[in-house]
Amino acid sequence: MRGAVLYAPGEIHVEDRPDPTIEHPTDVIIRLAATCVCGSDLWPYRGIAAVDGPAPMGHEYVGVVEEIGDDVRTVRPGQFVVGSFFASDNTCEICRAGYQSRCVRAESVGAIGTQAQYARIPLADGTLVATPEPPPDDLVPGLLAASDVLGTGWFGAVAAEVGPGRTVAVVGDGAVGLLAVLAARQLGAERVVAMSRHEPRQKLAREFGATDIVTERGDEGVARIKELTRGLGAHSVIEAVGTQESMMQAVRSTRPGGHVGYVGVSHGVALPGQELFFAEVHLHGGPAPVRRFLPELIELVCTRTIDPGKVFDLELPLDEAAEGYRAMDERRAVKTLLRP
Amino acid sequence: MRGAVLYAPGEIHVEDRPDPTIEHPTDVIIRLAATCVCGSDLWPYRGIAAVDGPAPMGHEYVGVVEEIGDDVRTVRPGQFVVGSFFASDNTCEICRAGYQSRCVRAESVGAIGTQAQYARIPLADGTLVATPEPPPDDLVPGLLAASDVLGTGWFGAVAAEVGPGRTVAVVGDGAVGLLAVLAARQLGAERVVAMSRHEPRQKLAREFGATDIVTERGDEGVARIKELTRGLGAHSVIEAVGTQESMMQAVRSTRPGGHVGYVGVSHGVALPGQELFFAEVHLHGGPAPVRRFLPELIELVCTRTIDPGKVFDLELPLDEAAEGYRAMDERRAVKTLLRP
Repeated sequence: MRGAVLYAPGEIHVEDRPDPTIEHPTDVIIRLAATCVCGSDLWPYRGIAAVDGPAPMGHEYVGVVEEIGDDVRTVRPGQFVVGSFFASDNTCEICRAGYQSRCVRAESVGAIGTQAQYARIPLADGTLVATPEPPPDDLVPGLLAASDVLGTGWFGAVAAEVGPGRTVAVVGDGAVGLLAVLAARQLGAERVVAMSRHEPRQKLAREFGATDIVTERGDEGVARIKELTRGLGAHSVIEAVGTQESMMQAVRSTRPGGHVGYVGVSHGVALPGQELFFAEVHLHGGPAPVRRFLPELIELVCTRTIDPGKVFDLELPLDEAAEGYRAMDERRAVKTLLRP
Repeated sequence: MRGAVLYAPGEIHVEDRPDPTIEHPTDVIIRLAATCVCGSDLWPYRGIAAVDGPAPMGHEYVGVVEEIGDDVRTVRPGQFVVGSFFASDNTCEICRAGYQSRCVRAESVGAIGTQAQYARIPLADGTLVATPEPPPDDLVPGLLAASDVLGTGWFGAVAAEVGPGRTVAVVGDGAVGLLAVLAARQLGAERVVAMSRHEPRQKLAREFGATDIVTERGDEGVARIKELTRGLGAHSVIEAVGTQESMMQAVRSTRPGGHVGYVGVSHGVALPGQELFFAEVHLHGGPAPVRRFLPELIELVCTRTIDPGKVFDLELPLDEAAEGYRAMDERRAVKTLLRP
């Protein structure tokens, strides 16, 4: 099969790789209908995170079940399925508490690599959710978004305790930040402030339900959020970048007693304890337990209640993955969908 | 009147100070029935926090209302009252959300100094809660504890989402940590693990409801908590110290999706963002909004349901405050009660 491999920073090659096989009786093999490039793929692509030898890439996926292991009970060949970037048994105490991304048996799908024609998905019963019927082609991007960026933005909104009557600020205008805007709106927020200085992303944020746009960053961005909230700060702030500046912007934009939900993969961040203490906000975040939200998100997409697939503004054949990475790296594209 | 003043690290003098007077129509003057020395008073006493000129000390207090300003409506002369270390209006949006310690009009009672015979309490209607009747003398220590250490331990437990079925670990065996044990038990925790290596404090922790004692600290302490929780970590961890070691011990002792409630005043702490991200815990804490809990705590003390006054293991006349500080600094006493 064909699959994308990162050899060194900036060096993505799509090449022939061995077809995956069932390794454990709880595995399934899926044929990818679509996959994509994640903002977090850019960390190793840019050389900020280490590249550990030639690495298969990709952890977002939707596709059709081709083959199932002997112990698989809940999905069957021919079904269209959506899964998350962490395989989970969905039965352990941590999964049952809603933290499937930290399942005691969690396996990284990223290590397997889904920017490929086929992929082995471990712990299939606990990881995959089938759509009610095979989706029409125009719903595939939305379902693919559910696999990570929508699920991650949704978790950010849940972690930030978004709800009716709340004013929500979103730090970060990548795919996750934009879909956090959508999530905040779906979860009933009264006011959703997107923090973005890029006109096309502002437009998408508005389409997803942003009521206000703030273009300022850092202390000026914080001051603008305070102005919009009678000096108090937002009830809920979703952080979708992962840098020191974005985390502090999130903490400082939140009112005392308010909630920061952080889903940007943290790079080089050190949170000052004393400031955090006196800020008196709630902090929660991490790798999104997307599996928790998949049934609901699939239903919202399949009923066309939401259209998160709009975040894909570039679609390429898998063999052109390298251009997909480049376009995102140069911010020419918000998110690249790849067709195997 | 007599009052304690800190001149320099280690130098506490009880001296004649001017009697307080009503400065704003929302003030009251109370005659202190009891006051005490706080663990946080030791930071400037030890020279770790700056001493800013001769500073009146003390922010914990119970007493009898002597005089009220013209706008005071809810307390009257002769009533026995308990208040918190932040005066609050209890009507602003932040107070109504339960964060009176961050009231938009918050005033620090510590700047006024309650280790004295009399004190002016600002924003009296929003700050003070009267007992149903003047309490018998043996309840005074418990009510004084409610003013800060009990309220702070309670907030730690609430911030850590303690509840039925939960396993709770408490990092820190000072008065706040010990009363966090009591709070966890009252809030229905199934198992409460006190982390302490001091035998008399272990004993008090047991009296307050600890089911387990862990004497190890740091990584070994974390390993013991993991052992007690089938490798997962505690559901709720209350941090009541404020150092880098204690914060990391708290974060690492918490299971994914679990809650850290931190109430130790933070000194020199920097939280590593990446570890926090992948730990996937909830963090909440800060200066306790004691006022939120006072009505409930006063009732629990007055009905003799709890006896938080046991944390006072040294009682001295106000004029001997210096010895009270020394005894706590040298860990000869858990907490010193002062009788003006």
